Amino acid sequence: MLDHTTGADLTIDHMRAAHDRIRPHIRCTPVLTSDYLNDLTGAELFFKCENFQEAGAFKVRGACNAVFGLSEEMARKGVATHSSGNHALSLSYAAGRRGIPCNVVMPRTAPQAKKDAVRRYGGTITECEPSTTSREAVFAEVQARTGAEFVHPYNDPRVIAGQATCSAELLEQTGGLDAVVAPIGGGGMISGTCLTVSNLAPETKIFAAEPEQADDAFRSFRAGHIIADDAPETVADGLKVPLKENTWHFVSNFVTDIHTASEQEIVDAMKLTWKFLRVVMEPSSAVPVATILKNPNTFKGKRVGVIVTGGNVDLDKLPWLK
Amino acid sequence: MLDHTTGADLTIDHMRAAHDRIRPHIRCTPVLTSDYLNDLTGAELFFKCENFQEAGAFKVRGACNAVFGLSEEMARKGVATHSSGNHALSLSYAAGRRGIPCNVVMPRTAPQAKKDAVRRYGGTITECEPSTTSREAVFAEVQARTGAEFVHPYNDPRVIAGQATCSAELLEQTGGLDAVVAPIGGGGMISGTCLTVSNLAPETKIFAAEPEQADDAFRSFRAGHIIADDAPETVADGLKVPLKENTWHFVSNFVTDIHTASEQEIVDAMKLTWKFLRVVMEPSSAVPVATILKNPNTFKGKRVGVIVTGGNVDLDKLPWLK
Repeated sequence: MLDHTTGADLTIDHMRAAHDRIRPHIRCTPVLTSDYLNDLTGAELFFKCENFQEAGAFKVRGACNAVFGLSEEMARKGVATHSSGNHALSLSYAAGRRGIPCNVVMPRTAPQAKKDAVRRYGGTITECEPSTTSREAVFAEVQARTGAEFVHPYNDPRVIAGQATCSAELLEQTGGLDAVVAPIGGGGMISGTCLTVSNLAPETKIFAAEPEQADDAFRSFRAGHIIADDAPETVADGLKVPLKENTWHFVSNFVTDIHTASEQEIVDAMKLTWKFLRVVMEPSSAVPVATILKNPNTFKGKRVGVIVTGGNVDLDKLPWLK
Repeated sequence: MLDHTTGADLTIDHMRAAHDRIRPHIRCTPVLTSDYLNDLTGAELFFKCENFQEAGAFKVRGACNAVFGLSEEMARKGVATHSSGNHALSLSYAAGRRGIPCNVVMPRTAPQAKKDAVRRYGGTITECEPSTTSREAVFAEVQARTGAEFVHPYNDPRVIAGQATCSAELLEQTGGLDAVVAPIGGGGMISGTCLTVSNLAPETKIFAAEPEQADDAFRSFRAGHIIADDAPETVADGLKVPLKENTWHFVSNFVTDIHTASEQEIVDAMKLTWKFLRVVMEPSSAVPVATILKNPNTFKGKRVGVIVTGGNVDLDKLPWLK
């Protein structure tokens, strides 16, 4: 259905078709609020808790859209991907629900919790070095061997259309927002957010939140072209990958601004949200809260949606307990 | 309204009146599910997440019912209580919303997170030793000095009627259950659950879950009369207090059974739920999951509501990281 489609070709109907396709396999996650965090930020925050997806991340949306959109013939050889974590386990989860094989290439440094989840869902892991170059080389070998359908973690219109369903729910659940803030790594969630929000709520601003130590999207946005870093280091392990052409389309055309936060600010925001929202969220998911706290004038008095992207955390290694 | 009412006098109309009174001040918390935890237990579990109340515990329901039910004249002198934690901060929260003073007596060993929350909501803390005897003695002095209205953490029909609103929401949100499991300390939540469930869903079984190391309700239930322990020690800090006459009425007449769990089983269940449900819950809230895992034949194949009672945890002192 999405053959020969690029990010630029995606329409709101692709999001709607994705939503119909994946609805039996995902949760319409709840939106939580905290008076305390509202007082602290001066904004009215609406947390869309994608950490409550069964696989613990919004990435099941895109993964399910890709997996359940395959023809019977394509599905037979299974799917394959490379991912720092949540896409790997989400694709394994989606493939498991369809009963087809899933091969994933993961950096050997990926969190143990995420590797464990991939295996629990029946995925097969091949490890690589923690750099984009190594990951792509190892992946080429795996794909050649299996003939599986490649589902890129974010640079895939099927994936972007799936992620776009999240903000459709958020807009409906909240009855409208002044702004949405989501983390940015490769840009899959932000692109899906742009697709939905620019069509259904064009007056709503879209902010991306990125770690200072992996600020390639921030620099790309300022420069007007993609700048890619190989293997940046940040506690927000889901946000290390660079933009690609399909996500750059959305970032360059629809994002209002990109804000960054330091490692300490991310960890502080994570602990703060665990304490007052009482949800288990990943460091990557704390970056939006960190940037909202850091840019009070942008968000004060506004109704702000915050995408809590995932909750797959190693509970034995919490970053504030080092 | 509830003058001269005892536990035995409470009717479902008291619950309904409480719900109408407190609705502007509480959240109708979401019900979460986990395929993983369902597979593990063989049951279909519905987690009613009271940890997502602003004050982080179901106790805001009873506290708000008591505080907002006071006449203007009574309210002027404020409210007072003794509590190991969540009732203290919930009563402070409720009093703060009405703009009246709140005095609480807390054991000096109470978790710092709970003391901090009481102060954040404007409550005044007087510390006592961690025993029922010391707590009651110090409280008598505080009440004599302030003339405040005593709102007992659980042995108060206004409080029980408030807690009863939780399972009314749970029954409606799930469309019916075979069983409900809630932790038992003093018995406020279990009594409210009994009030609602015995009236609205009399075929639904009611199980209480208690730490082995503070198993006074379990022994009371077997003996047929209240047995009180002074100062038992358990990681489930909310469950150390004994039953009293108003809660004993419900426990002795409506509870199907009481199950217990060891300290290690409670901590394991807590970590398991954080990992797979991705919510921050207290040790006390993990006791139901521990007892469900321990009694599979009781719950297998059943639709089971689980009350997640609270989420006020010291994130610097997690019990599995010792």
